[in-house]
Amino acid sequence: MIFSTSRLHPEARRTLDGFGLFEVSADESALAGCVALLAWPSDIDYSLLARMTSLRVIQTISAGVDDVDFAKIPAGVAVYSNAGAYTGPAAEHAWALLLAAAKGVGVRSRTENYILGGRTLLVLGGGAIGSAVAKIGKAAFRMRTVGVSRSFKDPGAFDARRGPDELEGSIPEADAIVDALPLNRRTRSVLGYRELSKMKRAAVLVNVGRAETVDEPSMVRVLKERPETRYATDVFWRREGKEDFSSGLWSLPNFYGTFHTAGGLGAEEALRRAEEAAVGNLRLALTSGRARNLVDRSDY
Amino acid sequence: MIFSTSRLHPEARRTLDGFGLFEVSADESALAGCVALLAWPSDIDYSLLARMTSLRVIQTISAGVDDVDFAKIPAGVAVYSNAGAYTGPAAEHAWALLLAAAKGVGVRSRTENYILGGRTLLVLGGGAIGSAVAKIGKAAFRMRTVGVSRSFKDPGAFDARRGPDELEGSIPEADAIVDALPLNRRTRSVLGYRELSKMKRAAVLVNVGRAETVDEPSMVRVLKERPETRYATDVFWRREGKEDFSSGLWSLPNFYGTFHTAGGLGAEEALRRAEEAAVGNLRLALTSGRARNLVDRSDY
Repeated sequence: MIFSTSRLHPEARRTLDGFGLFEVSADESALAGCVALLAWPSDIDYSLLARMTSLRVIQTISAGVDDVDFAKIPAGVAVYSNAGAYTGPAAEHAWALLLAAAKGVGVRSRTENYILGGRTLLVLGGGAIGSAVAKIGKAAFRMRTVGVSRSFKDPGAFDARRGPDELEGSIPEADAIVDALPLNRRTRSVLGYRELSKMKRAAVLVNVGRAETVDEPSMVRVLKERPETRYATDVFWRREGKEDFSSGLWSLPNFYGTFHTAGGLGAEEALRRAEEAAVGNLRLALTSGRARNLVDRSDY
Repeated sequence: MIFSTSRLHPEARRTLDGFGLFEVSADESALAGCVALLAWPSDIDYSLLARMTSLRVIQTISAGVDDVDFAKIPAGVAVYSNAGAYTGPAAEHAWALLLAAAKGVGVRSRTENYILGGRTLLVLGGGAIGSAVAKIGKAAFRMRTVGVSRSFKDPGAFDARRGPDELEGSIPEADAIVDALPLNRRTRSVLGYRELSKMKRAAVLVNVGRAETVDEPSMVRVLKERPETRYATDVFWRREGKEDFSSGLWSLPNFYGTFHTAGGLGAEEALRRAEEAAVGNLRLALTSGRARNLVDRSDY
């Protein structure tokens, strides 16, 4: 039996045919019989976990699992993320932020135009989103693509592939940087003042990963010191566990933001597809053991 | 001998080695000896033309020639445009406007995200810029591309190619429309209220051609009537011969604009390349007769 913290689309429910499914709520005996939990991390009620004595698998509907409180999850429970489920919309969003910032769309005054064609694109994170962003840079704008990652899902997307220790050294050559990193203990504040001040002055930094991979005070300082440098983000720093869109960055003319809508606010289709990806992967986890995106809990 | 209305970059000057070159000004006898005029249309001093008794060729540095007053140019003078010289930067700019409007970058409030991947892109104008815009849609975002044009420079860029009489019928199927039309008597106000109100409600219209291909009062009316429909433009309507950026559109939340910077404000390299393209073509016109972009004066 499976417990889902939210009501599923009919297509997703159909994928789970053959399993018992509880949505939103379940009584004590049902909880005790559930082998799997399908959830948005922020919806997980950790007090229920103690009563889910058969629990083997948690599958998130979100791509990231940085909001999961791993300390409260029994060691024997496998956690699967939904990485890759938002790739198309997230890559579109990264390019929207990058191009808008390069051309000054939304500034509402005459702004210098940064040409991207043929220049160097540095992508942080070699997962599905980072790879898709790099492929667009090559196919659409003949950019030279450099990737920095622990591992590369699609090595051919990058003209140069580098390890995390080469991050700082790669920054000065980039005309555009896209941060598509997951947030974990290795990536938190990986872009601090030292790294950010190595950017070319007329460069654009885009964040479609997690805000906390960038150090907030350093970002504010760099944008104030260097009016030509532009930062465009869909993700904001969390305060008291909640993403806070009311950043002081909004007052700066070289800042561009959207409100964490890359996953598809209003784009029901994108959300439905993400749910289907999660459910399909959960089915694999329960039946074949060939599921993708098993989380390495030591990263968190 | 050649007369250029502006001072040329050294590279462009070198391309004209072997010709006499006057920049910015020339005395009477020099003017009488000039066979070619290299100019931005707005810089042409028509009173000089009567004294340029040897004039055979005018080459513009601008891509468009809609600002040229053809009635004041002797019939025997061949006019060449610089179409294609801004293709890369203009296609980048079109995509910046399209993606920014689809994602609400610059709106500064939570805005519905329109997914473009796999949807239908209608491009008006099958010249160099329109073709480049379509190719990006296919290569980067797997879009179905429909082109409407009198002729197609790169037919393979479009999944469907249609004539100007099919414009109105093509509008309802488009999720995104990019206007890359030149302005001439056939294209002026080609998008009026009837055409604009055939757009899908959640569609984006981008203009990187000329503002006057869109009827201004109709555009304002459509954006007011349909808050989901978005218009993003780099070009504005001219008043008393001068592009007027102070449009009433800026007060509408579904409007996105840049200040005619696609050609490369601040991007010295883009402007230098455009000048080199013009000069190279002028050289061909004077030496081999194999120059591109001979303007059909009956269009204007």
